[in-house]
Amino acid sequence: MKYAVLGTGMVGHTLASKLVELGHSVGMGAREPGNEKAAAWAKGQGERAASGAYADIAQWADRVIVATAGGAVVSVAEAIGDVSVAGKLVIDVTNPLDFSRGMPPSLIPELSNTTSAAEALQASLPSARVVKTLNTMNHLLMVDPSRVPGPHDVFLCGDQAGAKAEVREMLAEFGWTEPVDLGGLAAARGLEGLMPFWLSMWGALGSPDFNYHIARAH
Amino acid sequence: MKYAVLGTGMVGHTLASKLVELGHSVGMGAREPGNEKAAAWAKGQGERAASGAYADIAQWADRVIVATAGGAVVSVAEAIGDVSVAGKLVIDVTNPLDFSRGMPPSLIPELSNTTSAAEALQASLPSARVVKTLNTMNHLLMVDPSRVPGPHDVFLCGDQAGAKAEVREMLAEFGWTEPVDLGGLAAARGLEGLMPFWLSMWGALGSPDFNYHIARAH
Repeated sequence: MKYAVLGTGMVGHTLASKLVELGHSVGMGAREPGNEKAAAWAKGQGERAASGAYADIAQWADRVIVATAGGAVVSVAEAIGDVSVAGKLVIDVTNPLDFSRGMPPSLIPELSNTTSAAEALQASLPSARVVKTLNTMNHLLMVDPSRVPGPHDVFLCGDQAGAKAEVREMLAEFGWTEPVDLGGLAAARGLEGLMPFWLSMWGALGSPDFNYHIARAH
Repeated sequence: MKYAVLGTGMVGHTLASKLVELGHSVGMGAREPGNEKAAAWAKGQGERAASGAYADIAQWADRVIVATAGGAVVSVAEAIGDVSVAGKLVIDVTNPLDFSRGMPPSLIPELSNTTSAAEALQASLPSARVVKTLNTMNHLLMVDPSRVPGPHDVFLCGDQAGAKAEVREMLAEFGWTEPVDLGGLAAARGLEGLMPFWLSMWGALGSPDFNYHIARAH
């Protein structure tokens, strides 16, 4: 499978490297085609890795992961262009954090509460099949659930069952055997809305190595 | 201990009845002193139960629980008056849900993201010691953690350590032995922000009998 990972931060690096390790071909996309971090990553990963501009990498890939800042999703979508991802699975792992009011960050009002980064991304890429997942945890845990012992959960939501089935495949390769399906893409409001709680919990525990487990009666 | 439970909905009824069962004296407060639901509840509970207007019940009590709609906290605070609760523990279990845009509800913009119902309540009752807790689960689970098997968590936050210690006492009486302290009252933004996710999960599971467990590596 050819994956585009758009974003050159820690989340992008972790996901891209894991996908290469799993045997996939991976392109790391950046705003500028000559981005040094993306080029250095690709050089270090060998022949199954590449780097380039968002649109070129997305066009080349079978599946696209958006791992940029959440506030950038609309501009990333504009840079990609809907045609480049028509019919493709687009996996959104972002959080629309607003650092403009200081720490801790809040959520960007235009991308939260009655909407979400995932919905804004889908609206900007109407021909793509957007699924939200993995945004509720530390990047290292995303690709290695065993970092936290015992049962704990990853969530997903999206409007197309087939797209969610593809995401389940990828999550299974990462070690997530039973992802919890929250329904349509609008459930991303809740998933992105977990971030302020997550940040408080990180502060309380002093470590990002934790995750949610949904304990159920039935 | 004399508890005021302000609010006549399901949450208020459940908390008030449990507190009576535990041997406390409980007054159920309503906006109008002759509220029929509050009077009927008190009549059914016997001699340790009373009902009355918010201010009278809060004045009488040692500890006050706000269990109204989250959007009402400022008007409830105005009805109580700061003098009635000076130095008292005020426990906020509300969620500032906005039903004005249809279902599912979102969060009231003026009481979320960069603030919270808990912070608005504290600002309106500056002499009280406000603690947020119990807002992250179904009302029946609040007073009976055994409804959900295995480990799962209740959270609290507030600006006064002594007030949080008093809340721990009450939670222990309900069966919560190890509440997770998220720090200052501003962490209520995260706790109240869990509600949209909770509603999605309720829809996905088809039952409100679930709760969060924070799985930790350390």
